Amino acid sequence: MSESVYKIIELVGSSPNSWEEAAKNAVQEAGKSLKNLRIAEIGKLDMKMEEGKIAAYRARVKVSFKYEGK
Amino acid sequence: MSESVYKIIELVGSSPNSWEEAAKNAVQEAGKSLKNLRIAEIGKLDMKMEEGKIAAYRARVKVSFKYEGK
Amino acid sequence: MSESVYKIIELVGSSPNSWEEAAKNAVQEAGKSLKNLRIAEIGKLDMKMEEGKIAAYRARVKVSFKYEGK
Amino acid sequence: MSESVYKIIELVGSSPNSWEEAAKNAVQEAGKSLKNLRIAEIGKLDMKMEEGKIAAYRARVKVSFKYEGK
Amino acid sequence: MSESVYKIIELVGSSPNSWEEAAKNAVQEAGKSLKNLRIAEIGKLDMKMEEGKIAAYRARVKVSFKYEGK
Amino acid sequence: MSESVYKIIELVGSSPNSWEEAAKNAVQEAGKSLKNLRIAEIGKLDMKMEEGKIAAYRARVKVSFKYEGK
Amino acid sequence: MSESVYKIIELVGSSPNSWEEAAKNAVQEAGKSLKNLRIAEIGKLDMKMEEGKIAAYRARVKVSFKYEGK
Amino acid sequence: MSESVYKIIELVGSSPNSWEEAAKNAVQEAGKSLKNLRIAEIGKLDMKMEEGKIAAYRARVKVSFKYEGK
Amino acid sequence: MSESVYKIIELVGSSPNSWEEAAKNAVQEAGKSLKNLRIAEIGKLDMKMEEGKIAAYRARVKVSFKYEGK
Amino acid sequence: MSESVYKIIELVGSSPNSWEEAAKNAVQEAGKSLKNLRIAEIGKLDMKMEEGKIAAYRARVKVSFKYEGK
Amino acid sequence: MSESVYKIIELVGSSPNSWEEAAKNAVQEAGKSLKNLRIAEIGKLDMKMEEGKIAAYRARVKVSFKYEGK
Amino acid sequence: MSESVYKIIELVGSSPNSWEEAAKNAVQEAGKSLKNLRIAEIGKLDMKMEEGKIAAYRARVKVSFKYEGK
Repeated sequence: MSESVYKIIELVGSSPNSWEEAAKNAVQEAGKSLKNLRIAEIGKLDMKMEEGKIAAYRARVKVSFKYEGK
Repeated sequence: MSESVYKIIELVGSSPNSWEEAAKNAVQEAGKSLKNLRIAEIGKLDMKMEEGKIAAYRARVKVSFKYEGK
Repeated sequence: MSESVYKIIELVGSSPNSWEEAAKNAVQEAGKSLKNLRIAEIGKLDMKMEEGKIAAYRARVKVSFKYEGK
Repeated sequence: MSESVYKIIELVGSSPNSWEEAAKNAVQEAGKSLKNLRIAEIGKLDMKMEEGKIAAYRARVKVSFKYEGK
Repeated sequence: MSESVYKIIELVGSSPNSWEEAAKNAVQEAGKSLKNLRIAEIGKLDMKMEEGKIAAYRARVKVSFKYEGK
Repeated sequence: MSESVYKIIELVGSSPNSWEEAAKNAVQEAGKSLKNLRIAEIGKLDMKMEEGKIAAYRARVKVSFKYEGK
Repeated sequence: MSESVYKIIELVGSSPNSWEEAAKNAVQEAGKSLKNLRIAEIGKLDMKMEEGKIAAYRARVKVSFKYEGK
Repeated sequence: MSESVYKIIELVGSSPNSWEEAAKNAVQEAGKSLKNLRIAEIGKLDMKMEEGKIAAYRARVKVSFKYEGK
Repeated sequence: MSESVYKIIELVGSSPNSWEEAAKNAVQEAGKSLKNLRIAEIGKLDMKMEEGKIAAYRARVKVSFKYEGK
Repeated sequence: MSESVYKIIELVGSSPNSWEEAAKNAVQEAGKSLKNLRIAEIGKLDMKMEEGKIAAYRARVKVSFKYEGK
Repeated sequence: MSESVYKIIELVGSSPNSWEEAAKNAVQEAGKSLKNLRIAEIGKLDMKMEEGKIAAYRARVKVSFKYEGK
Repeated sequence: MSESVYKIIELVGSSPNSWEEAAKNAVQEAGKSLKNLRIAEIGKLDMKMEEGKIAAYRARVKVSFKYEGK
């Protein structure tokens, strides 16, 4: 039914390999405790540098899911 | 007292009739478990289409309320 | 390890004296129940007026911390 | 003639019923003392909450009108 | 299948009564010649003034639909 | 009548002389096949460099015109 | 002295020839009744179309000047 | 009553010491001639340099107050 | 010659594997009916979720190409 | 070869006559010490006022050129 | 003379005490090797957290200064 | 020590294969002459087209590093 309410949370996932994997890590972690994940929007991409090398690709992800109080 | 801390959460409400009703649905659902709701800002409006018709008007709402840990 | 997931929440702190103190109030309150706070980004500054005077400086703060489900 | 100068002012209207009415209240109030109102752009929508209920729908409106000094 | 391509077009609908109706007019007109309309995002709301009165509520709508060349 | 629907398209015009001429080139080209052009908004200005010289001033223009299906 | 307060107003100037002239018209009109005009920022450029031709180049200009109450 | 109309004006305050003081200067100056000042939003912060030193901290402030025609 | 006019259209491509592939799908589909594709800008990335899994990576792409009427 | 790296710098040019000339001044000055200038994007336009007159049209320009360390 | 060219660079200053001091640190460091610093715009404020405490207030500052090749 | 100053520069990297590789190329080139690279933020992604094919994926990267005068 169309009147249900969704909540949006913002997560940061990271991966040594790619932004796709960074985003997947974030939504998988979220999926463990949240039901009905919908669209996941990418907000900002960056890279963490360590000693002149890329230590991690990171992606900010806004995930929406069914809201059931708090 | 003016030093209390507020938390902001982002919800998506929907309604078959109007964005006002969509926003109201979101804050009412939030109001069931949160106290001291204050200003509710509208972030983004859209419409869900189904078979060429508007199935729902949807509104993203940022609600602030008194923060009491997590 | 670099693949852990972080969550971002948005708080509003206030203070009668300065935006620095307003932001500090917000992160201190958050720090009571959250572990591993990292970067805290300032989103928006404003002032609450009461009877023609500044009652409080307020700061919106986005805090990221280790995500452990919901 | 096309070289006349317009001024833009920003108003906030409110209504217990809808954003359309909130915006209408703002432009009507402006229309009492300003001539030649043109396009009125909506900047931001929000809702004022009181005791868990929506006390008012509010709309920020940018109105342009013929500029005649100050 | 998930690899199909969508196109986004931007329309402006208007109505003497409400932004909901303005947006509905835009998507209905689009729906006459386009198939598979999906999400319709609202970009900007304004009002057309005529002789000090609101002549029309207008809504900019971004509609996405299945792309089949040009 | 105020309920007609408009479509917005985005063009890039260029000129060796000025951004005014670049924008004019864009709307003139559009005007050959489209009727009822209205407001043309400038989105972004840039310059194309060739061998250390400005080869062209370019202007992105959003033109709205009466929508008659596709 | 550095503690004086400035006010910013937003004007729309227009010209049949160029955006430079449109902006100049706006600040000249403002300069008739305001003293100490400072930086004038350009906010948005557009063109007014009439019968398929450019009727006017228009520029939104934010002008700051010394504030002396209202 | 919730249907009153507010006007928003934009001021620039400055201070040799801090942005808090710069913002306070702006709202105090405004408060001399305007009644019912409400929220004051900070838009942009900068610093005026003179001979390699900071001559003033400056804050752009949007103040809203009760609108009573012009 | 530098005075030709370009048109920009906005497409959404998707892929089960990566945003690079999603963007490639969009420009390939466009390339079948359009000539002289130039720069393709990425506007927004997201992911479509189905039953807790990533069903598709999606990319919004703005493609510019030579404009030849409509 | 497509894998070379470009650097972007931001300049402010000015001219008593036009924004085109202001931008040209900026890229010409840059061209004296930098090779392979490419696209120059315009970021912000303003005008410097002196004694109620326009003293200079100014343009912020982002210029990209081949990066060869620092 | 008004046709000189300025360059803008972006710095991040930090301080354990305030954003004012963080910004001052940035411009002082820049002032050691650059002449004719002008307006310094604040871009983004944040705080570095260490073990639940604010280790530093940080400010992004855009400084403009006379451009003399590279 | 927390009061050191960082500088931010903006680079454009490119790669025939992916945006991850494009960004890596940019930071590697920068790392040859700069020390203490920190966070690298992604600003804008695009694709260079040549004869209807993707010639390069390109990424704009903002790199911060320790500032030591100019």
